[in-house]
Order: sequence, then C-alpha cells, then structure tokens
Amino acid sequence: MAGIAMLGSGFIARFYADALVSHRRPDRIVSVYSRRTESAERFAKDYRVPVWTTRMEEAISRPEVDIVCISLPNHLHEEAVMACVRAGKAVMITKPLGRHAAEALRMLQAVEKAGIFHGYLEDLVYTPKSLKAQQLISQGALGRILWAKSRETHPGPHSEWFWNKELAGGGAIIDLGCHCVEIARTYIGKDIRPLEVMCWADTQVKPIEAEDHAIGLVRYANGAIGQFEVSWTFRGGLDLRDEVMGTEGTLWINNFLRTGFEMFTSGKGTGYTAEKAESESGWLFPVADELNELGYQHMFTDMLNALEQGHQPRETFYDGYVVNAILDAAYRSARSKQWEPVQLEVWRGQTEVHVDRTLPDYDEHYYLVKEETTHYGARKVILQDKKTGEIIERVLS
Amino acid sequence: MAGIAMLGSGFIARFYADALVSHRRPDRIVSVYSRRTESAERFAKDYRVPVWTTRMEEAISRPEVDIVCISLPNHLHEEAVMACVRAGKAVMITKPLGRHAAEALRMLQAVEKAGIFHGYLEDLVYTPKSLKAQQLISQGALGRILWAKSRETHPGPHSEWFWNKELAGGGAIIDLGCHCVEIARTYIGKDIRPLEVMCWADTQVKPIEAEDHAIGLVRYANGAIGQFEVSWTFRGGLDLRDEVMGTEGTLWINNFLRTGFEMFTSGKGTGYTAEKAESESGWLFPVADELNELGYQHMFTDMLNALEQGHQPRETFYDGYVVNAILDAAYRSARSKQWEPVQLEVWRGQTEVHVDRTLPDYDEHYYLVKEETTHYGARKVILQDKKTGEIIERVLS
Amino acid sequence: MAGIAMLGSGFIARFYADALVSHRRPDRIVSVYSRRTESAERFAKDYRVPVWTTRMEEAISRPEVDIVCISLPNHLHEEAVMACVRAGKAVMITKPLGRHAAEALRMLQAVEKAGIFHGYLEDLVYTPKSLKAQQLISQGALGRILWAKSRETHPGPHSEWFWNKELAGGGAIIDLGCHCVEIARTYIGKDIRPLEVMCWADTQVKPIEAEDHAIGLVRYANGAIGQFEVSWTFRGGLDLRDEVMGTEGTLWINNFLRTGFEMFTSGKGTGYTAEKAESESGWLFPVADELNELGYQHMFTDMLNALEQGHQPRETFYDGYVVNAILDAAYRSARSKQWEPVQLEVWRGQTEVHVDRTLPDYDEHYYLVKEETTHYGARKVILQDKKTGEIIERVLS
Amino acid sequence: MAGIAMLGSGFIARFYADALVSHRRPDRIVSVYSRRTESAERFAKDYRVPVWTTRMEEAISRPEVDIVCISLPNHLHEEAVMACVRAGKAVMITKPLGRHAAEALRMLQAVEKAGIFHGYLEDLVYTPKSLKAQQLISQGALGRILWAKSRETHPGPHSEWFWNKELAGGGAIIDLGCHCVEIARTYIGKDIRPLEVMCWADTQVKPIEAEDHAIGLVRYANGAIGQFEVSWTFRGGLDLRDEVMGTEGTLWINNFLRTGFEMFTSGKGTGYTAEKAESESGWLFPVADELNELGYQHMFTDMLNALEQGHQPRETFYDGYVVNAILDAAYRSARSKQWEPVQLEVWRGQTEVHVDRTLPDYDEHYYLVKEETTHYGARKVILQDKKTGEIIERVLS
Repeated sequence: MAGIAMLGSGFIARFYADALVSHRRPDRIVSVYSRRTESAERFAKDYRVPVWTTRMEEAISRPEVDIVCISLPNHLHEEAVMACVRAGKAVMITKPLGRHAAEALRMLQAVEKAGIFHGYLEDLVYTPKSLKAQQLISQGALGRILWAKSRETHPGPHSEWFWNKELAGGGAIIDLGCHCVEIARTYIGKDIRPLEVMCWADTQVKPIEAEDHAIGLVRYANGAIGQFEVSWTFRGGLDLRDEVMGTEGTLWINNFLRTGFEMFTSGKGTGYTAEKAESESGWLFPVADELNELGYQHMFTDMLNALEQGHQPRETFYDGYVVNAILDAAYRSARSKQWEPVQLEVWRGQTEVHVDRTLPDYDEHYYLVKEETTHYGARKVILQDKKTGEIIERVLS
Repeated sequence: MAGIAMLGSGFIARFYADALVSHRRPDRIVSVYSRRTESAERFAKDYRVPVWTTRMEEAISRPEVDIVCISLPNHLHEEAVMACVRAGKAVMITKPLGRHAAEALRMLQAVEKAGIFHGYLEDLVYTPKSLKAQQLISQGALGRILWAKSRETHPGPHSEWFWNKELAGGGAIIDLGCHCVEIARTYIGKDIRPLEVMCWADTQVKPIEAEDHAIGLVRYANGAIGQFEVSWTFRGGLDLRDEVMGTEGTLWINNFLRTGFEMFTSGKGTGYTAEKAESESGWLFPVADELNELGYQHMFTDMLNALEQGHQPRETFYDGYVVNAILDAAYRSARSKQWEPVQLEVWRGQTEVHVDRTLPDYDEHYYLVKEETTHYGARKVILQDKKTGEIIERVLS
Repeated sequence: MAGIAMLGSGFIARFYADALVSHRRPDRIVSVYSRRTESAERFAKDYRVPVWTTRMEEAISRPEVDIVCISLPNHLHEEAVMACVRAGKAVMITKPLGRHAAEALRMLQAVEKAGIFHGYLEDLVYTPKSLKAQQLISQGALGRILWAKSRETHPGPHSEWFWNKELAGGGAIIDLGCHCVEIARTYIGKDIRPLEVMCWADTQVKPIEAEDHAIGLVRYANGAIGQFEVSWTFRGGLDLRDEVMGTEGTLWINNFLRTGFEMFTSGKGTGYTAEKAESESGWLFPVADELNELGYQHMFTDMLNALEQGHQPRETFYDGYVVNAILDAAYRSARSKQWEPVQLEVWRGQTEVHVDRTLPDYDEHYYLVKEETTHYGARKVILQDKKTGEIIERVLS
Repeated sequence: MAGIAMLGSGFIARFYADALVSHRRPDRIVSVYSRRTESAERFAKDYRVPVWTTRMEEAISRPEVDIVCISLPNHLHEEAVMACVRAGKAVMITKPLGRHAAEALRMLQAVEKAGIFHGYLEDLVYTPKSLKAQQLISQGALGRILWAKSRETHPGPHSEWFWNKELAGGGAIIDLGCHCVEIARTYIGKDIRPLEVMCWADTQVKPIEAEDHAIGLVRYANGAIGQFEVSWTFRGGLDLRDEVMGTEGTLWINNFLRTGFEMFTSGKGTGYTAEKAESESGWLFPVADELNELGYQHMFTDMLNALEQGHQPRETFYDGYVVNAILDAAYRSARSKQWEPVQLEVWRGQTEVHVDRTLPDYDEHYYLVKEETTHYGARKVILQDKKTGEIIERVLS
C-alpha cells in the first residue's frame, strides 16, 4: 500500500480521491495541501486525511508519504514538481504537464535527474474503452491506422483560473486538447513521431482572451493523421468521443453521452446525473460510474502498481512533454495560419518508419481496389492492372 | 482484508476471481476447491492460490478462510451451504440460490440459525447502471413505478450441466430469470410483495427437456408489473436490457450490446470482444470492462465491506429465496396456463400498500389528463371534470 | 388517378391527406365529410377540397369519387362502411376495423358480398422499415421466426372519444394493440393461424374505465409467439419499436424515438418535433418525415395502385377482422386470467403447419448446440450425441 | 406532369429513375441517352422509356421533353449543359456542377444567359433530416451557428471514371466534399460568404493520383466554421453524418448507418441491405428507404414543382458554382499548406455581417458565463463583471 500526499483539494482532487478510496483499495491519502485553510480542512474531513496544511512542503515531506499527487492549477505545476524533486518523492501530476513545452521539459529533466518515479495522470487513455481499443488495435483488428480523432467539448470549465490565459496557459486547446492529442497518440502509436500541426482556433462566444473552440490536425511520420476537436461552447453536456479509421476497420467510442443509459423524467427529484450535464428534465443520459468510465480506476491501479513494482507507468512526464510540444505547434499554427512543425528536443520513439501499402491480390493480373453490390443488384469489382497500373471496373454476374 | 475460499473453478469462479484480485484489492483467495484435480490446480496456479483441493471441507475449514464463495453448479449449492454452516463460516453464493424455493428456504433457515453472514451474488443488481438507476428512482425521478422489464437472452450457456433439467433445476427461467426477477424487484421496491405470476415457456430450438425461451409477468401488491424475457435461442450475443416506466419518467438500460463502443473489422486479429459474442468480423460491440459492467466490482465491494463492518449486504439469502419462490410460480403457470400465486412462507416486507392515484390539477374545475401539440400545430389538452368525472378535450390557441 | 372521398377531418384524416397530396401524387380528395360544419370547411380549405358536407352519403355518392377513405372514430366505422356498400364504392378504412370481431366480420362480409375493393389502413406494416424487414425475413435472413414483439406506448391519445370505452371499444389494447398484433403477424407469417392469447391489462394511472396499460402474448400454430406491449402511461414521447428473434438472426426496429436525429436545445424556437413528443428543450429526437416513417406514403401507394390495377392491397378487411378476433381473445384473457382461444369463424391461411427443428451437424456423431469463446480464452462447443441425445461440452484448443 | 430526358444510365441515373417513378408520381422519363447501346437499351426496358439513343442531342431535343436530367460523369457535364442551352431545355444536373469553378461558372452563365430553368441535384440537403434540421435552425432552436460538420466516407466509388483524376476533377474531395460543403452552407446560411479554406488531403491507401482522404475547414464571414471529412478508405459501409453546434443547442444527424434498424444474421439469405454495405452477416444496419433517406424524393418534388410553378428550386447552378469555388480553395490549400481564399467572381449573398455576442445577464452586476453542478454536489456559477470584465466563480448553496 502507498501513502499519498494530495496537493490541491478542488474538483479534480476530489475525483482522484474518490477513486483512490473506492473498492477496498489499500492505499491511503496521508496528507493534503490546499492554498485555502477551509478547503484543506474540508477535504481532510471528507476523506479522513490525518494531516492537512496550507504549506506545500509540509504535505510533501512527511515520512509516510510514498508518492505525491499534484492536482493543482496549471500555473502551480512546476513549483509543485520542483518541491517533489527537492524532497526526493515520487510524483504523479494531473494534465497538462506544463503550460508549454519549455515548462514541461524543465519538469521532465528535473524528475529524471533526481531519479524519482513520475507519472502523468492522463486519465482518458485509461478509460476501459480506450484500453480495450488499444488492445484490439495492437492485435491488428483495424489494420494500419489512418486517422484517429478525439473530441472533447462541453459548456466550459468549473473554476475561474481556467478562464485566465496566463494561469492556464491557454483556453480550450490546453485544457481539452491535451487529452485528445494523447488519445490519438495511443491509437496511432506512441513511438511514431508527430511531425507538424495545422490548427484553427477562435473565441466565438465566451468573454475571454483565450480560444473557446479549436480544431487541429497532427500529421505523423507514418502518414497517419491525429485530429482534435475541443470547445467550451458545446451545448448538451460533455461530449467525449473517439473515432479511428484503419485499413481493416473502424472504431467508435462514446465515453459519455451515449453509453447505454437513457432516462426521461418530468424533472422531479433528479439531481446530479453526469459531469457537465445541462438539464435535469426531459431525456437525460446518466453516466453510471464516472470514476471507471473516465479512467481513474485503471489509471491509479497502473500508477501505484508501477510504483510498487519498480517500473514505469503507461504515462510518464515524457508523454506530457510530447503533448505540450504538439499543443505549442497548434497555438503557433492558429496564429500563422499554416502547418507548423512539432519541435521536440527530446524524442525517444522510432526514427524511421516504413509503410506497407500493397493492395490485396484479386488474381494473377489484378489487385483488388474494392468490391460492391449496387442498389440495382449488380456485383462489381474495381481492379488495378498490376503491370500498367490502370484502374478498371468489372461487373460480376 | 478477507481470506476467501473459492468453491468451484469454472466460468463463474474465474469471473469472480478476476474481480477479487483487481484494482489493488487487499483480499486474498486462500483456498480453492474443484471436483477435478487438474481444474483446481490450474485455477490455483492462475490466481496464485496457496491451497487447492478436491475435498470441499478442506477448502472451507482452514483458519485463514474468512468467507466462502460458492461458485458451483446449482445442484451442489445446498451441500456447499450446509458445509459452511457446519464450519461456521460466512458464505456468499452465486445465483440462483436454490433450484426451487424449498431448497432455498432450507439454506436460508440454516444460515440464519447458524448466525453466519450470508450474501447472495446477484451481480446484475450491482451493475453501475443498476445502482445509479435505483438511486435515481429512489429520489423520485420516475415517480411511481408502473412496470419494470428485464431481458436476458443469449445463444445458450457454456457448460453441460446447465442443459440438464435435473442438475440445473430448469432451463432459461432458472438460469436467467433469477436475474431479471431480482432486477425488477429493486426497481419496484424489494419490500413490495409479489402476488402472482403468469408465464409462457417453450422449448423452441434446443434439444432439451427444459425451456429455452420464456416470458413472464409478475404482479406486485402495489399494482406494478415486473416482466422477464429470457432465452437461450437469441442470436447476436448477450442481450441484457432493462426498461422501467413510472408516472414521471422512463428509464432504459443496455448493459451489454450497445454501451458506446462500436467496431467494424474485416476480421484480422480480433479475438474475444465480449461474453457470448457470436462473430469476430463485421460490426462488433465490444464490452470494455465486463467485470465492472456486470456488477462484479460493486458486488464484492459491498459483500466484503458488509462482512468487515458487521452488517448485511444489499442481497442476502432471503432475496435469493424470494426469487426462487417467484420462479416456482412461473414454472407452475407455464404448465397450468393461468396466473399462479407466489407462495412465500417467509415475507419480511410491507403487508399493506397504499397507491396514490390523484391526477395533477389543471385548474379549479379540471384535472389534467394529458397535453399535446399535434402535427398540424394545434395545442390540445385532455381534461377530466373534477365533479362529473367526464373527459373532454380543449384546443388551446 | 383516383378521386377520394374523405370521411372525417381530424387528426388522422389530416395525416392521411398530407400523404395523399405530397410528392406530386396525381390523386385528389374530391369531397370531405365531417360531423361539424366548421371542421369540414376548414379541412376543405386547407386541402383545397371542392366539396365539403356534414352529410356522409353526400360525400360518398358523388360520381367523381373512386374510393372512400374512412377516418372516423371507431364507433362510426360500421355505419360508414355500410354507406359505401350501399353506394357500391371502393373503401379503405383506418384502424381498427371494428370495436370487436363481430362488428368486423359484418363489415368484411358486407364488402365481400358487394364485391367492392376494400383496404385496411394498417400503416405500421407499411413503414419503410417494416417493409424492408418483411422482405429480409422472407429471404430467410432470420431463419425460422420464434418471437415477434411490437411495442407502442405514448402518453395517451389526442381526442376525447378514445377515452370512452363504449365509443372506442376499449382502451390502449384496441387503440394500439391492433397495430402491434398485425405487425407480429407480418413477421411470423399472415398465413399462420393465431391459436390463443394471454393478456394482462390494468388501469394504472388514467381516470378511465378502460385499460391504460396492457401486455399480451399470442401463440401461433407453428409455435411462434407474438407479443404486444401497449400503454397510454408512457413518458417520453411515442415509443414504437419491434423486436424479432429467429433461429438465424435478430431484428430490432425503432420507428420513432431513435432514428438518427438527435438535438439538444435550450428551448428557444423549437416547436413541433414529433408526434406526442413531451418536451421542447433538452435532448430531443425529432422525426424528420413522419408521413414516410409512419408508413402513410407506402400504404397509400399500395392501396391506390391495387385499386387501379384491380388486385387486392396488402391489407384488407380480412386482416382487420383477424386482428379484432385476436384482440377479443386478449380482452377475455385479461378478465379470465388464463389463455383464451382466438375464435375465427373465417380462416383463410394454412391449416397444417410443419416445423423443422433439426440441429446443424457438428460431425458424424454430434449435432452442434452452440459454440463460444469464454472470457478466459477457451473455445468451447456444446454438442448433442445423435444416438443417445446426451449433451456434452468439449473444449477446443 | 413533366417529360424528362435522362442523360446517363448508370448508378446515379437508376437511383434518380427509381425516385421519379415511385409513389404514383405523374412525371415520365420520355427518353434516355447513354454512351453504350446495351446500357441505354437495358435502362429503357427497365423503366419503360419509349425512346433510347446513343446520341445526346436526340434525347434532349424531342418535343415531349420538358426538362433534362444530367446523370453523366463529371467530365461530360459542360458538354451536356451546353446541349441543353442550345435546345433551350430546362436542366437539372447531378453533383458536382463542374470539375472546378471555372467550368461551373461557364455553365452558370450559359443557362442564365439562355434564361432556362436550372436545378442542382444536391440530394443531401434534401434528406428529410436535413430539411427538418434547416427548419429547426431557422426557427432558432440552435441559436447562432458556430460550427457545422458534414462527414461522408465509404470504401470507394463504384465506377472506374471516379478513380481517374482528369475525368473526375479530383478524388474524394470533388466526389464527396461537394455534398459536405453544401450541407454546411445550408446550416450556416447560404447568404453568408465563405472566406477561406484550410485542407489536408492525402492518398493513404488507394493506388491513385488523386486524394483518397481529406479533411477541410471553411471559414465564413460571420465567424462560423464549416468542416468536411471525406474518404474512400473508410471500412464499415457508408458513413454519412452531420453535426452542428450553436449557441443554444446541438444537432446530430446520422443519415445512414444508425437510423433505427439493426439486424444480426448468420448470413443466410441476406442480400442487399444498404448502399456500400461491406458485409452480409453479423450485425447489419439496413437502410429501409434509401430513396427517401438520401433526399431523392424531396429533391425531385422541389425541382419539378418549381419548374411547373415557374420559380427557382432550392438548389440552382449558382449553388453548384459556390461549392466548386470552395473546393478549388481546398485543393489549393492542400498543396500550399496554408489557408487559401475562396475566389468568388459572382457572390449574391450578404456583404456585411453583424454578429451579436452579448452574454446573458446574471444580475445587475454580472453576465452569466456558465452554471454547473459538480460531482461532489456543489452548484457553481462562472460570472463576468460587467464593468471590469473580470471572470469570477461563485458557489451557490
């Protein structure tokens, strides 16, 4: 079992704590730090944490702390990581790692130099659906991956600091795009280098400096395309969907709005049904077990097992750094209006990529391009001549 | 933490064990019994169980055993429960409790007389969706419950003993109906007495004596209707759905086939996608985290927390007995072709039920029966005269 | 082109008229009858009908009338049909044909004796999905049909006469069950004799004498089961779904609530989205083309083509009569609490039915009962010994 | 009624003809032209067309021809339109209008100069769902439109000429993007000027010069974004979906793969289930009435009603020209890797656009940015100070 120091006591700290104390897990939150006394105290009471404090070092340095869980606003990440480095404590940190790649790189280099365990709490690559999808893709069920889109949109974040460009490091891109980019990486292959990014971003509705809506494309070394769609202007709840296309198949995941639970109610006695739900009457789509659906259960199991067994978790600060580098390119592209290269000082994946593009054989003379039954009953094949490269159609029967 | 003796090493024992060892749970399977040596040995190896045996008493009686988990075929339930009673060990048992109510009642009385902890492993009332639905219903989101249907159909069970009427106690009704009946009870209210049952059952396809398809209605004391639809002849995987109607709302749960994960594949490298899936190419509907979706996680958390904290779990042998009594009435009805009373020697719920059937007021003179906008734009209300009881329509605007 | 006399000017007459004048159809409504002057006049104006009247015979007897379309409340059906018989005019009639089988049989015998064209406007067996499903089933895509359920539930009808048991002939069963019963017949086979009915009915919510909720089972001569679920107490709109199970497949149709159109709106400017929708904000499920989705287009095309070409339409008074006979048995069963025989004085379908129940061969010695991959990776088959009939399991690989 | 000359006798000509002869429509195909004798002859036989010919002018010029329907490959559009111009015949043409904007503009100017009726057969803005969505949006159900995505992907076209860049004018962009771009225009407003386009395109799988996969963004004068996703590499059938975001709501349309019809079959006797379906067993999603779902019914009703009544149809050559201009910019952008302006020599919409971006009032001092109930039960609002512009959060209750 692990002793955990929780830094932060707000929205995400409470989600994490709910997961950490569920299902008879043996790990314990042994200290909690918050900037505000009453918040630290309330968290300590709610989760039976023996020590609460408004001094970060105090929460970290106690001997019963095996690992620090950073659940603070973005602008406090570097300070908190450096405190862990100084104390020589293992650390896991909420997303995004930094507000930009330079900040992220400093954190990565610090934890690696200190030789401490470091985990990146990118929950959405740990959702049961994401894990199953990664497994099916690695078995070849989709063939070669061509495109991986991840979409996260909702009506806007729940705390004031998100709306401040300086503190957050940006708007919807840094808040939501970090999820989408890492999700696409897990489908395309985390060892495939992201080369360049094209991004549109705008402030369409909200009264802020940062973007409230953005769409980006990330081109990878093997020709695959990652796509992110993020917004704080979406109406209707939390929209969290992935779509993947491969040469042998397609995969659609709906993590939130349509997961097999539908309810109509006239509105009596409904209450909380799901994160960022916008209504309490009419047709609703409750999420039954958010801690599991959002990946928190599998994420902390991986993190704490890895810590105990002395190996790296699935997601480390290095992954957080790569994500920041991709998002930096997205921000540059939104300004320059052209594709911008992903600048990676550190790259640990493949450096050469080979793509096999051979078509399946139709017969001795032709490759099969496609086969179709038309609405008027004809069975047709489209073929390519192996020698001339010419494309022809042939009606069978 | 609890030491668990596992009786049985097959399909369901492995599902249970997967849940019991997941997510850093502190509990341990300390012994395993199986009728076949090689099966016991393999299970012990796969789940690192220190003791395996082909003698049931030996697995149960060890001092490190805090609770026995019975995962045996139906005809061995009573024998196993009685062994726990003799050893004075806490016990939890897979569904159904008995092959009929008389057997179930003997088990209930034995564990109660012995004063041992007893849990009924009805996983499907513990699925995250069921738990959330029970909570929403108890808050009043659906108003008064009128009808609760649960459907479980698939292409047939995985072990030979299920197909033997004597060993199993029946066919699809005893195998699947036990789930559906208890699910409906949790929605309608476990303290509302089931009065009578009407059931159709037939052997439409399979080469067996027992029924492979059945549909039943259970009438409750408050006028609500429970409905079960069970079959071993369904094609297309495991169909596991609930529908509930109340005066204020509707609730639809799909526990398996449509939960937000869809995949098309040409068939390369697919493998196991979900329990009882029937194909490995084309459009598939993988279930990402069966242990959680099927309720095993929340069920064992409840059972072992209850054991530790010294209170009853949500589901006890008493619930198993009530379910058996309802199913007995279903079997009688299938033969007699009329409604059959549920015979409950033991009943611990409400004995008088009051149903409030007042309509909402429309104005001083009328109750509102319904309101509708027609396809040609008229806004209509149907009203009932409070004095005369007459029903009229009125076009607004 | 056909000249049509429309009897009735309300909800259903307007739906029919919308279909009859759409998509450049050449047919014309040449007269309209209504019991109320202002209603007849308004209908005539809206649909440019040259003649309107409050005398039924006048609307029917005009020389330009080729066919009469009866869109009147149930208690006026017989009178209207007899008027057509006297005038020797072709007739098509809204559902149900009669309030009971005796009334239906009189109408059937009258039109047949008069030798006039007669069509039964059971629109829901003409929905594009129903027609496609019937075609796929007739091709064998589902194998032998085992069970066909049709469900129609909504928050209650739109006109006062529906709520009067005497005028309507009953409640939700006669109003909605007539659809469900005929839908099941088209899937099971209209030439397969319905033998007996088991039905539960209750008045759970509405202030009426007739039933507002009912569930029934219809057993057919080939062992197949038809099921209807009807209610006026459903919350959430119009729920119109069919499910069919066969030995080779499964079919699910959602005719209304989930047809690929979903909208969330804060509620500004929404208006009519679908028949019997209950809300105008939150998540809504608009029906794009109700005339087509509800079968009106294909129904009138079939009726008027049949009239022109001199053959019977898909649905005739005979079908209406069979439906009434089944519903009569349902009402009897709801009272007697046992299965009741379907009393058919006239039956024109098969009188002997043979059901082939041979299992597929597994090898020389065994039939294949089922095949499954378990969650722990085992590939299992359940087999039946061809000689002994014994069922065994075998683990492959 | 109209007499129609059909130019072309292949896939799309047959879809059109099926719609034109359905549901008792009075219009008649009076002549058919095909480049191949046997194809013209077969079409004439199948659809009972009195005149067939391999000389285009002959099909057009006959006196009984009221309108010409051009269903030819892209490279023959201009030639066919000019023939109609010379004959002074009304014309409607399949999509895209031209292979590029210059070709489209020549056709537009020619028909306008000749003063003949001209319709652009963009069926997908005529699907029942599109028409209903356009109506709901125009009523304000979604508020101000922010983003409109349309996606059309499938496993590749059915005739050889599509695969030839010269004849088709491009690949997936010209083939499918023309639909998506016009769909987005109808949601955003056809009078809002498209300003610039950013597009990624690649040849990921197929052995062709043109692109088989592309994603593009179109920025409009009011800040709204249109998005198209097109591919010939998709696996799993025909994916045809729209998503629209507005300040007051969200709209999702699935035109094909998930429209309320699901079937599992072991594969016996299935046959054609939907255009470009890829399998005939397992879970299938049949499309019941493709002619209606794909918009052909409503499109031809609009076209021929407009012709008869002497006004313009919803879609004219002008719309086809605008679409081509947008696609030209997409192709330029795919090469230049930056946003490219839409070059419109002719623009007939708004020239000045005002966007209202006022937030709703929360109280005297604050605007409401958003409201949320968190998973731990807090009710929070995010507010903007009307004077200072500062964003704050406030916890209610």
